[in-house]
Amino acid sequence: MTIPPLPPGSTIGILGGGQLGRMLALAAAELGLRCHIYCPDPDSPAFDVAHRATCAPYEDESSLDQFVRSVDRVTYEFENVPHRTAAFLASRVLVLPSEKALRITQDRLHEKRFVTDLGFQTAQFLPIDNPEQLTQGLTTLGSPAILKTRRFGYDGKGQIKVSHGDDVEVAWQSIGKQNALLEAVVPFEMECSVVVARGSDGAMAAYDVTENQHENHILKISSVPARVLPTTADEARRIGTRIAEALDYVGVLAVELFVVRTSAGEHLLINEIAPRVHNSGHWTQDGCQVSQFEQHIRAIAGWPLGSAERHCDVEMINLLGDDIGQWASLAAEPNVALHLYGKHQARPGRKMGHVNRTKPQARRDR
Amino acid sequence: MTIPPLPPGSTIGILGGGQLGRMLALAAAELGLRCHIYCPDPDSPAFDVAHRATCAPYEDESSLDQFVRSVDRVTYEFENVPHRTAAFLASRVLVLPSEKALRITQDRLHEKRFVTDLGFQTAQFLPIDNPEQLTQGLTTLGSPAILKTRRFGYDGKGQIKVSHGDDVEVAWQSIGKQNALLEAVVPFEMECSVVVARGSDGAMAAYDVTENQHENHILKISSVPARVLPTTADEARRIGTRIAEALDYVGVLAVELFVVRTSAGEHLLINEIAPRVHNSGHWTQDGCQVSQFEQHIRAIAGWPLGSAERHCDVEMINLLGDDIGQWASLAAEPNVALHLYGKHQARPGRKMGHVNRTKPQARRDR
Repeated sequence: MTIPPLPPGSTIGILGGGQLGRMLALAAAELGLRCHIYCPDPDSPAFDVAHRATCAPYEDESSLDQFVRSVDRVTYEFENVPHRTAAFLASRVLVLPSEKALRITQDRLHEKRFVTDLGFQTAQFLPIDNPEQLTQGLTTLGSPAILKTRRFGYDGKGQIKVSHGDDVEVAWQSIGKQNALLEAVVPFEMECSVVVARGSDGAMAAYDVTENQHENHILKISSVPARVLPTTADEARRIGTRIAEALDYVGVLAVELFVVRTSAGEHLLINEIAPRVHNSGHWTQDGCQVSQFEQHIRAIAGWPLGSAERHCDVEMINLLGDDIGQWASLAAEPNVALHLYGKHQARPGRKMGHVNRTKPQARRDR
Repeated sequence: MTIPPLPPGSTIGILGGGQLGRMLALAAAELGLRCHIYCPDPDSPAFDVAHRATCAPYEDESSLDQFVRSVDRVTYEFENVPHRTAAFLASRVLVLPSEKALRITQDRLHEKRFVTDLGFQTAQFLPIDNPEQLTQGLTTLGSPAILKTRRFGYDGKGQIKVSHGDDVEVAWQSIGKQNALLEAVVPFEMECSVVVARGSDGAMAAYDVTENQHENHILKISSVPARVLPTTADEARRIGTRIAEALDYVGVLAVELFVVRTSAGEHLLINEIAPRVHNSGHWTQDGCQVSQFEQHIRAIAGWPLGSAERHCDVEMINLLGDDIGQWASLAAEPNVALHLYGKHQARPGRKMGHVNRTKPQARRDR
């Protein structure tokens, strides 16, 4: 797909007004592009940095109609854009990444089948549509295993660990009695992710793989370089690239990976695809000439991609909840770049900002 | 002066909505601070990236009153803030940099006396208040010399070269028959500038001196490192630092300098002080961890200053008028960072954006 490039002065519509939308809008501004943010939350941090903001439900066709008239292209900061919203907008203006990416990544079952069809590995999984299948699944995959809703899961929401002997009815209720997957527990060594960009001309830019640490299922730290074998790092970039190509993707996507080590060496399992800029790619703001946010804007605007080359080592640390109280001491630290989201309520676990701690590039050997 | 630091979520009021205000607002956003832009021009590029915008004349007390109620601190992007506006706001909220810097830099005569009182050199100058003094001045300073209005000059506006034999009445009329200066023409080798930041605690951060090239009196290119002697580079930073201290300054300021070479070596003459972020400091966006824009926001917000250390060589090129048409090819160039202002009309000489062309740091010898 080649798309007409948007000249500076054009307006990009962004669905979603969280910190990802905010950082996309900031990157767009540096390229002379305006943003119109559409988000139902009146407290959206992206509103603060946008040319225009619409605060309305995603189902409000009259607001969507006005929105679509004011923009030259539409993108989004989250994968759970309602299907009807995406379809309504796509009938009127180019929406990128396209509907296919949303359709596949909104459903864990479709997503896992998609990546295994490409020849990549995931944790073993089984579709679960009732408690009986859950009992059966635990026997097939082993106990414990993880029950995950097929749709609308993030940051550990919509999932629960289940073991033989647990009350399967209770587990089934706890995820809202909806279509689900059961996944085998993977004895992984490390969680990693890779962020790649694909331009409308098919050009690819793959960032270095990051090593991720979570706290209570929420990303806490992403570091580059990841302590993996060079062959594993290459394989991660290959996975990202292949997925973007198979989706005929335009924009930035992230693939979350498990690194598994056996006597035979290291290999990667795919955990999840995010059809958007990703928290584990925030290091690119201070580690690369062109960040994931600028890359995404370049891609969906039909501009050439920039360089994804890394020029220093970076540790990205999320400021969750009360962590934001450390802003003054962090601001005083050398080699720490602050990225705060301007959110007013520091609820526990809420992503309030992040810092990138940089140091000169050094290949670390394992 | 120690000032209370503004916590993230606070609102900074910015007088002026041009590209400098825009880039200040973008830098503030990364620190979690909101901006309210006040500018009489409805087409202000800073409006596109601000939490709030007021489009009203600087003399409109009712609008200023609403503005000042909505902000926690005020700064400005240009030195010609009307005195009454600054005084009105300063009676209600902290305005930084303070009134002293405006008062001195708004008047070329005060400014030149201020820097010569500090022991620094400028081109020779004489106050000119009528055509007769102009005739006399040409005899004293030599011909040709440059007649400049004391107030409201920028980008070569409000100045004219005058020679013996020219009609002094015509020259006097051409600058609007207002109080002026006559400056001797300096046989300079190069124009340079230095950008320094001073925090509310008196801490200083001085950026590397840049070498500037103008076209039709408008800055076209700024390069770092400047091709000057190390002692000259040090002296430039010392000049910037001393001026900031003498003004009890809080924020970023720039000093434009002439490099003069004689058989005795290199020395510097001060051309002009700008009590604000400066076009010749745009390279810091891609050459330093903390840009001049973030430094200014840190300073006026009462935050600690960041590092002004340079990590690569940079050539900053202004995109003037139709130059903006090159955006697509510039976007495709490696090591070029785009900073476009989203202005819609590309009038001749209008600053539409700039690019920073970076390359690995290398000391250039002369």
